[in-house]
Amino acid sequence: MKPYSEYLQRINTAIEQANYGQYPDELYAPIRYMMSLGGKRLRPILTLMACDLFGSDSEKAVPAALAVEVFHNFTLVHDDIMDNAPLRRGKETVYKKWNMPVAILAGDLMMIKATDFLCETDTPRLKELITLFNTTAREVCEGQQIDMNFETQNQVKHEEYIHMITLKTAVLLGAALKLGALVAGASDSDAEHIYEFGKNTGIAFQIQDDILDSFGDGSLTGKKVGGDIAANKKTLLLIELLESVHKDDKKVLDELLKMPDSDEKIQGVLALYTKYQIREFAELKKQTYFNLALKNLSKIQAKPESKQVLESMAINLMERLS
Amino acid sequence: MKPYSEYLQRINTAIEQANYGQYPDELYAPIRYMMSLGGKRLRPILTLMACDLFGSDSEKAVPAALAVEVFHNFTLVHDDIMDNAPLRRGKETVYKKWNMPVAILAGDLMMIKATDFLCETDTPRLKELITLFNTTAREVCEGQQIDMNFETQNQVKHEEYIHMITLKTAVLLGAALKLGALVAGASDSDAEHIYEFGKNTGIAFQIQDDILDSFGDGSLTGKKVGGDIAANKKTLLLIELLESVHKDDKKVLDELLKMPDSDEKIQGVLALYTKYQIREFAELKKQTYFNLALKNLSKIQAKPESKQVLESMAINLMERLS
Repeated sequence: MKPYSEYLQRINTAIEQANYGQYPDELYAPIRYMMSLGGKRLRPILTLMACDLFGSDSEKAVPAALAVEVFHNFTLVHDDIMDNAPLRRGKETVYKKWNMPVAILAGDLMMIKATDFLCETDTPRLKELITLFNTTAREVCEGQQIDMNFETQNQVKHEEYIHMITLKTAVLLGAALKLGALVAGASDSDAEHIYEFGKNTGIAFQIQDDILDSFGDGSLTGKKVGGDIAANKKTLLLIELLESVHKDDKKVLDELLKMPDSDEKIQGVLALYTKYQIREFAELKKQTYFNLALKNLSKIQAKPESKQVLESMAINLMERLS
Repeated sequence: MKPYSEYLQRINTAIEQANYGQYPDELYAPIRYMMSLGGKRLRPILTLMACDLFGSDSEKAVPAALAVEVFHNFTLVHDDIMDNAPLRRGKETVYKKWNMPVAILAGDLMMIKATDFLCETDTPRLKELITLFNTTAREVCEGQQIDMNFETQNQVKHEEYIHMITLKTAVLLGAALKLGALVAGASDSDAEHIYEFGKNTGIAFQIQDDILDSFGDGSLTGKKVGGDIAANKKTLLLIELLESVHKDDKKVLDELLKMPDSDEKIQGVLALYTKYQIREFAELKKQTYFNLALKNLSKIQAKPESKQVLESMAINLMERLS
């Protein structure tokens, strides 16, 4: 297992050198732009790491890693249209920099290219790779739709929320790892354990995202604190608060939810979060999924020092401040 | 080779029985709706026919045929957003019946499902199928972007137009046939010939579309005659007219192009089409590509009576009135 920075460099080179296509430039320039915006490149790095973990050469997993990253960016390009989002990683979104039709088409092509890259993998298990990739892609779309449904849904249950983030965020982390494992020729049970490890880490990762949005340091996250509160977003925190509040506070909360975005609204909801120990609740949930992830990891047959690297990375993701 | 109606029935049953997914219904209802709108089902039927042509059982090609039709409908769902189109086959478009985010996501999922269906094909040549399918998908997206570019492009050359319709329309007809041929185990050269046959027929098919838009019978096409003229769409007819007009008529034409949609505008351009024999020019071009298609067909090693069925169908497509 190599250090994160080395994997990052490898995947960035692959992204830079990838041939997405040339003509018409109106279609390919947005794709190159989107792929060059950077980021942690977490998902493709998981693919490379998993390949090394199971004793193979991560170089073999580069096409699959590229497929995962291109797919992830395809979802971002389309999500930004749906969310009418002006910025992505501090730069204009494809949708804003070009226009809606270009963003739809460029996204479509990225999805197609992702499958192309996946098919470049030199493996006798290609069909397994494609099936996993496609199932995951479908689940990510389902998760996005369920998340949109939440906006108009009166009540959202904990399990529904966990199911939504599992589909929208967590399965892709699991699949990224499993793809690397399959390329390395891991056993079916190891491939399954690492998928579950990634999925449960992903759920914890998303809960940390919710916590950071309300309790993070805006100077570190680069986002306005309380953005989810301002938008009445049904995060795990708000769902739990809605279930916990006593009668009197319920009235206060209902009033706050009706308010437009303001400091008063954000501070009001934060005060209720504190009163009902919502952060503590979310931290506990996060820990529960992280513990599940550790259990999955413990079942994997691989070098302990390599597994340790994955564990440390998961801890970093879960405790991250940004 | 069976009669068209039998293939149509088979593909409609497959479409009806296909499992696109269940939850959330907000995502899958639009997909089922779109797939149930009907149509000629030309592309999947080509896949089935090609499989029979090469002596196999078209039943084996049903998953690939389904993939082609789901893919084609995915492009329509996204095109309708880009074109802000209210109607599709006389019914509300997904985009209008639901909304834009749902239409984007439902389209994305249809693209993913198309690959899923393709992978269900029982064939040792699956990788060839996927590569062909993905290359074609990419080309269709490129064609759509080039078509959008034409809207703001001052001058479009004949070759550019033919290249655009080749990508946007014709390659999918070629690929639909070639997929069926590959499933049937056709030789590489036969697979290539039938691809070219489909592609050239597709170009002729699209030119016929342009002709019908200006010279068709609205009561048969179900479209307003002159829709392309009203929208200044750079069809083969307008491109040829722009290259042919003499100086004085050029001024008249420029004025007509500046006019908003009106009978005066449509009749004015039609008069110039007549004066410069533009319809005759288009018919000739169409015939050129149809002759190429026949040449391709003649090279295929298959039963003459089966090839005759394909030829008759191509003639019908080219001479169709709607």
